[in-house]
Amino acid sequence: MKVLVVADFLEQKHTDLIKATAEKAGAALCFCESETEIPEDFKDAGVVYGMAYELARTSRDLKWLCAPFAGVDRFVRPGAFANEECILTNSAGAYGVGIAEHIIAVSLMMMRRITEFFLETTAGEWKRPRPQKSLKDSSIVVLGTGDIGCCFARRARAFEPAKLVGVCRSGKCEEPAFDTVYPVTELEKVLPEAGLLVMCLPSTAETAGILSKERIAMLPDGAYVVNVGRGTAIDEEALADALEGGKLAGAALDVFSTEPLPKTSRLWHTKNLLITPHVAGNLTVDHTKQRNVEMFCEDLLNYAAGRPLKHLVNKKLGY
Amino acid sequence: MKVLVVADFLEQKHTDLIKATAEKAGAALCFCESETEIPEDFKDAGVVYGMAYELARTSRDLKWLCAPFAGVDRFVRPGAFANEECILTNSAGAYGVGIAEHIIAVSLMMMRRITEFFLETTAGEWKRPRPQKSLKDSSIVVLGTGDIGCCFARRARAFEPAKLVGVCRSGKCEEPAFDTVYPVTELEKVLPEAGLLVMCLPSTAETAGILSKERIAMLPDGAYVVNVGRGTAIDEEALADALEGGKLAGAALDVFSTEPLPKTSRLWHTKNLLITPHVAGNLTVDHTKQRNVEMFCEDLLNYAAGRPLKHLVNKKLGY
Repeated sequence: MKVLVVADFLEQKHTDLIKATAEKAGAALCFCESETEIPEDFKDAGVVYGMAYELARTSRDLKWLCAPFAGVDRFVRPGAFANEECILTNSAGAYGVGIAEHIIAVSLMMMRRITEFFLETTAGEWKRPRPQKSLKDSSIVVLGTGDIGCCFARRARAFEPAKLVGVCRSGKCEEPAFDTVYPVTELEKVLPEAGLLVMCLPSTAETAGILSKERIAMLPDGAYVVNVGRGTAIDEEALADALEGGKLAGAALDVFSTEPLPKTSRLWHTKNLLITPHVAGNLTVDHTKQRNVEMFCEDLLNYAAGRPLKHLVNKKLGY
Repeated sequence: MKVLVVADFLEQKHTDLIKATAEKAGAALCFCESETEIPEDFKDAGVVYGMAYELARTSRDLKWLCAPFAGVDRFVRPGAFANEECILTNSAGAYGVGIAEHIIAVSLMMMRRITEFFLETTAGEWKRPRPQKSLKDSSIVVLGTGDIGCCFARRARAFEPAKLVGVCRSGKCEEPAFDTVYPVTELEKVLPEAGLLVMCLPSTAETAGILSKERIAMLPDGAYVVNVGRGTAIDEEALADALEGGKLAGAALDVFSTEPLPKTSRLWHTKNLLITPHVAGNLTVDHTKQRNVEMFCEDLLNYAAGRPLKHLVNKKLGY
């Protein structure tokens, strides 16, 4: 078995762990930092851990690809794999902690108006307090109850919200931090209660445009929206209108339908919109890197032993 | 008994509660928004709830003043009360929730570098991720374990820090969110572990300059400092030097030795310093207002019944 690692984020402790695991699994191992550096004798590797779009698209030898990120939309498109039987796993589970911290941060920045105070003090201005909101006693709806949604819910619970509700495809989620979890078919029932709507959905056919103009109108006046999943989930024009018109008090977007956000986008200038450049989850955080590598190593042992893989992506569902 | 309320933050539900309580207590009641509006027949009130510095300084009839804020340094100075026997209570307990949210927000803004991303996107720039830190697995020291410190600790606990340590005068604090609480005499023992140092101390003779140049040097390299207590607790020049010199990775100050921060202060231009204009705790947040009024009403009934007051300030300690 040949195992190829294509990654630029690994530190010594991570390569050590992968080496030790590959040895246990009886695999030959090769590290490179990008797809352009794959040595000739590993272009037929059966296992790849990393961002190897081109190899996936062309190699018929590839049996299992482990993506070091959570959103695998580029890998579930038709033609993504030359070998259609190729197994796909992802690294959902590594990003929840970091992204949950981002959601808490931007929610508080908006509700407590720290964005405004910070811009003012950066310009040398000391202005007086103005009405602030609080996570305490707020009503929160989390759309998407995977690793990110659950990590967020556990942290949000400590802020004593009035209500903390999850929404997911099945309506089933064991996370006790949620008061209730509804199936997505009941989304419109909970939107009127979403003082803070947190969106952490994968990009699939079902989630595209899920926050439509009509559904934005169902949110309570003065609601806040946070999106850390995929930009395609929101009608961005309708969101911008709702911010400009004062229907929404604020929105924080880390993801966009086109990234980087085009220079011509009206979102750059939309009122009360906090933009971050897709940095909520990334491979600079120690914990995220460590979990990422551990999850791959766990499944490498499973793979070598012929056991089912733990972090499998359902290619039809897209996550 | 005459009860005078000097406050500009009350809503209908608050005045209703105060009226009902005063009736139970058998007290005559008068509301005004500022000290300049006190009617002649209430200048001899025995009980005042509000910001009545001038009345306190001049009235020998004043028996009990309830301050609607937590930091009462102006009321414990010599000469603050014409009647030296006047009882002083404060509203510590109303602000912890809101200030804890502020501490979490600014800590994450610094550690996750959202301050930088936000300034860049505000300028229309989409830049790539750079190394971020996480509250998870971080080592946090909380200097001051009153209402604010405990509210923060309960929220910080949900972020799974490696260590969460409190420091207070007595070393005694029942809050289970802390791993350990040390007496302030052992402060220098814990400073080398403070990856994030959170300061929420009252202004007293003991806390003035407590974070000195020497103690800043004891912090680990790349530490973060947050101050929401009183500005006098920090040697601001030494802090600015440590930020400019790269010893500290960031600091977030909501309080300053002089407020508003003078136009000429070097802090306005200090690298990696997040300034907010004393807004971490204020009377715009619904929960804070409600608790503030409830705590006064609770003690008004105690006072009328001759029971000890619950929110007494120890004038000698200053909090």
